[in-house]
Amino acid sequence: MFSTLLIANRGEIALRIARTCRELGIRTVAVYSNADADTEVLRVADEAIRIGPAAPRRSYLDMSAILSAALQCGAEAIHPGYGFLSEDPDFAEACRAHGVVLVGPPPEVMQRLGDKASARAVMAGAGLPVVPGSTGTVETLADAREVARQIGFPLMIKAAAGGGGMGMTAVCNPADFLTSYQQVRAHAQALFGDGRVYLERLVSPARHVEVQVVCDTVGNAVHLGERECSVQRRQQKLLEETPAPGLPREVAAQLAEAAVRGARAVGYVGAGTFEFLVDRDGRFYFMEVNCRVQVEHPVTEMVTGIDIVREQVVVAAGYPLSLRQAEIAPSGSAIECRINTEDPERGFVPTPGQIVDFRPPGGPFVRVDTHGYAGFRIVPDYDSLLAKVVVWAPDRPGAVARMDRALRELRVAGPGVATTAGFLRQVLAEPAFRAGTYTTSLVDEMTTARAAGFAEQGF
Amino acid sequence: MFSTLLIANRGEIALRIARTCRELGIRTVAVYSNADADTEVLRVADEAIRIGPAAPRRSYLDMSAILSAALQCGAEAIHPGYGFLSEDPDFAEACRAHGVVLVGPPPEVMQRLGDKASARAVMAGAGLPVVPGSTGTVETLADAREVARQIGFPLMIKAAAGGGGMGMTAVCNPADFLTSYQQVRAHAQALFGDGRVYLERLVSPARHVEVQVVCDTVGNAVHLGERECSVQRRQQKLLEETPAPGLPREVAAQLAEAAVRGARAVGYVGAGTFEFLVDRDGRFYFMEVNCRVQVEHPVTEMVTGIDIVREQVVVAAGYPLSLRQAEIAPSGSAIECRINTEDPERGFVPTPGQIVDFRPPGGPFVRVDTHGYAGFRIVPDYDSLLAKVVVWAPDRPGAVARMDRALRELRVAGPGVATTAGFLRQVLAEPAFRAGTYTTSLVDEMTTARAAGFAEQGF
Repeated sequence: MFSTLLIANRGEIALRIARTCRELGIRTVAVYSNADADTEVLRVADEAIRIGPAAPRRSYLDMSAILSAALQCGAEAIHPGYGFLSEDPDFAEACRAHGVVLVGPPPEVMQRLGDKASARAVMAGAGLPVVPGSTGTVETLADAREVARQIGFPLMIKAAAGGGGMGMTAVCNPADFLTSYQQVRAHAQALFGDGRVYLERLVSPARHVEVQVVCDTVGNAVHLGERECSVQRRQQKLLEETPAPGLPREVAAQLAEAAVRGARAVGYVGAGTFEFLVDRDGRFYFMEVNCRVQVEHPVTEMVTGIDIVREQVVVAAGYPLSLRQAEIAPSGSAIECRINTEDPERGFVPTPGQIVDFRPPGGPFVRVDTHGYAGFRIVPDYDSLLAKVVVWAPDRPGAVARMDRALRELRVAGPGVATTAGFLRQVLAEPAFRAGTYTTSLVDEMTTARAAGFAEQGF
Repeated sequence: MFSTLLIANRGEIALRIARTCRELGIRTVAVYSNADADTEVLRVADEAIRIGPAAPRRSYLDMSAILSAALQCGAEAIHPGYGFLSEDPDFAEACRAHGVVLVGPPPEVMQRLGDKASARAVMAGAGLPVVPGSTGTVETLADAREVARQIGFPLMIKAAAGGGGMGMTAVCNPADFLTSYQQVRAHAQALFGDGRVYLERLVSPARHVEVQVVCDTVGNAVHLGERECSVQRRQQKLLEETPAPGLPREVAAQLAEAAVRGARAVGYVGAGTFEFLVDRDGRFYFMEVNCRVQVEHPVTEMVTGIDIVREQVVVAAGYPLSLRQAEIAPSGSAIECRINTEDPERGFVPTPGQIVDFRPPGGPFVRVDTHGYAGFRIVPDYDSLLAKVVVWAPDRPGAVARMDRALRELRVAGPGVATTAGFLRQVLAEPAFRAGTYTTSLVDEMTTARAAGFAEQGF
């Protein structure tokens, strides 16, 4: 096993990784930017190395700063968490060149899956259903128009280099096509340095369901069941749960089987997530693979009893998986709520500031992953995820009641600081959520209904 | 189901009860003394009623103040938690007389089990092995001497009205008998208003293992497995775990079977705990029944997925148990550490004061039950339990590693405030603890060894 591991991330996920490493007896080195000098992982890790100023490009996205830190502290491995460099094949390549193990799939796999058009082609080749659309990227406007004509409207234009809701737009009719096409290309070029796009039919209404897989270096691959991630605002997930309510178990089994098949086809190593769209008839379509641990991995941990970060590290160290598919028996129901320091009353604008009172929920079957504490200063430089509240119960109604109770207990107070907790309680109360029949449009519908309600009341 | 329930307790257990009631949709009323005006349950409960000054006899032990509060707020039920009035048959009787349901066994059962000599006789009658000793209480010194002669030394003199480590002493040889006998009688009279005592052989070395049972009003009785509670200091538990390490599973099954048999014999209702001594040969002896929820109930919840407080409330409302013995399948290993605000370096003296920094541990498979927060003032009027840190893992070594990591993460800081967390990490590191072979003398041995170590170093 590794003796020293560097954590190339911040916030709750840095803490999450440090926790598992501590339990495995691995020495941890945290890196931090100037803005994160009082963050919680520094207290928990064995060593801390300052890597640069607040701006991500000069700290958490700075490959050479992170590699230098790893070499300086003698780390044999780097865990990149999610976001930042976690899915960057160049970073994976650089780690390999320096003899440092990056916890994740090899750079070649990351490359093939990171290009969303190529991932789509690979998975279609492995027999996974994909949304009807272009074969790979479309190279010219004329090609794009021809493919669009074949697919029909509405459709999606997506950046090949995008993912996680970034670099995509829906086009409802041919008249808007040119403008949207040019916008996504320009946006993709600016965001990712890669303007290539591909087209897909817009599947709507749809549910976003993903499957967790874990694979080792000697050919073992298992799935840990699915997660329902349709509670999204602007393609950002707010709440996730497992098992997916209302999804027939035979469809869930097909999704899981497809994910494992896809993982084997691409030679996947480590923990990965296969994202699918599921339409109202239970037809499903491969969307993309996330080559990293997900924010929402704890719901899977709650129902399986498996520490996914531990499995990542064990596999990265070259050990075979100790998990056997037949022995993985998810039980009960789990929900995660992302507590973002954003103000739902003001369009979810981030609310940085100092927390003066912080009381996480607790008690039976409640898990909290947070880097927050009373006195913690939320900086404006990074994403606004402050805490993940995760609950388990024997059944879904029990989990919903428990989550509502936990969110009610949570207290985060400070001048100007707001959170999404109250909004998430509204989500839990929505009839479509209660019934387990919601789709990715749930949050939009709530927002629209609220606006309409305001209008009726004369606001 | 009840619509309103009054919580006749304070601290973490009051919060624990409020949580389950919230999830069940039951309105909760918290009571509090003047010393507890800023305690966490007041924020979480639906209503709060001040019942008196800090002194327990004038607040949490004041039956009429609590019953008045219950009648005032229209509570149909009272949950007494542990300690205070939770095992007082007079209180149970008074509740019944006022038409309020007390969550717990009926007063007659509480009476029979509350008298430890009578409980011993009842259980012996039901075929449970008891420690060789007197038949019921000993009424005269002459009787006592005669029984002592038959039992042999060392032996225990115990108050019939005692329990939970209160009102008992060990006597090593006949020369000390008279003094000890008179002391326990006087002590018992002063503490419990009842000077009756009984004698038992001293079983040592021994392990303290208890079995959780839950029974309904229509004759169903199940057990939820055992808990190992031998990590004690002066008969106060510091750490508990399940399953009991090193206890042959067939002995564990016999203990569980004995507990259910005992519960049926006495017509038990609600959640109860059968405490046993287990000697080094795996022979076990009934000690006493606790007619309430235990501090350490969360370890059982972690391995079974069952909310024990929920079962208590459901049974108290007259519903039959939904649990079936065959469906209760404990999995993995759980440990609880009691975080007391006491200073292990100064003989575990309580350290009241204000907490200025409070960071509970979190992450995978960690549960925290606490009424603490940054800004909370620990008052000197009550016991010093601040938090319970509970972990689960697939196996015991994993749970031990996880607990050590969780205790390391915990931060409780404030002027003059100390906790037992560091001492508990020393317990986790003890070879006998690691090996799972420890007995109730573990903590004494640690303390003695440390004192000897100091002596060697010239302290």
